[in-house]
Amino acid sequence: MGKIKGTRAERELVHMLWSSDFAALRAAGSGSTPLPCPDIIAGNGIRKLAIECKSLKDKAEYIKKEKVEELIHFAKKFGAEPWIAIRFDNEGWFFLNHEDVERSKEGSYIIPLELARERGLTFKELIEKVY
Amino acid sequence: MGKIKGTRAERELVHMLWSSDFAALRAAGSGSTPLPCPDIIAGNGIRKLAIECKSLKDKAEYIKKEKVEELIHFAKKFGAEPWIAIRFDNEGWFFLNHEDVERSKEGSYIIPLELARERGLTFKELIEKVY
Repeated sequence: MGKIKGTRAERELVHMLWSSDFAALRAAGSGSTPLPCPDIIAGNGIRKLAIECKSLKDKAEYIKKEKVEELIHFAKKFGAEPWIAIRFDNEGWFFLNHEDVERSKEGSYIIPLELARERGLTFKELIEKVY
Repeated sequence: MGKIKGTRAERELVHMLWSSDFAALRAAGSGSTPLPCPDIIAGNGIRKLAIECKSLKDKAEYIKKEKVEELIHFAKKFGAEPWIAIRFDNEGWFFLNHEDVERSKEGSYIIPLELARERGLTFKELIEKVY
């Protein structure tokens, strides 16, 4: 996705999280640091969320295997739930567990809109989730 | 402090945290967003740290009241310990609790090198701290 469009989507999600009583922030240069880094981190005193974001116009999103492995590594070490957040134009946000995402032959993660609709949580479901 | 120098100091601290088994990241544009935002957030599965960083050549650092209030607000909502991290040239890092910092008449926080040495924790003390 374009960098500006991606940033705008991330900012939207950060504001949504604050409106739902989570403190949230965007990471600096998550694409440029050699260290594992999610796009957004959020917490509400009880739950902590590490979120990799994608925003797109097309009907399916691909995420490189390494990005998902980094998300899982960061989340495990930090003590946070790893989430893949996908924003489809005119459909809004869906939140997926990496285990619910299909893999290509090369190991990339593939998220078609139908799969996001079927297996993803809405924002409301994400923030109301209880363990 | 200069923006480039500040970024370099923040990156140094992020690397130190990773080397000590904390997952850590720098926040994007913590000076430009209207939302409360620390410079660095870190976690090791047990503890979470929200850190406001200062790096300087001089013998004392001033931090605006609002920045410290934002740090405390973010940390409380997120579920993290709020820390003020000061890096003095040739002295390294000191980590202070906001309650240990002196206030100016206008409410700004003042951190002279002597106070940082006396009341601040070293990096080793910070990461080994047990509650």
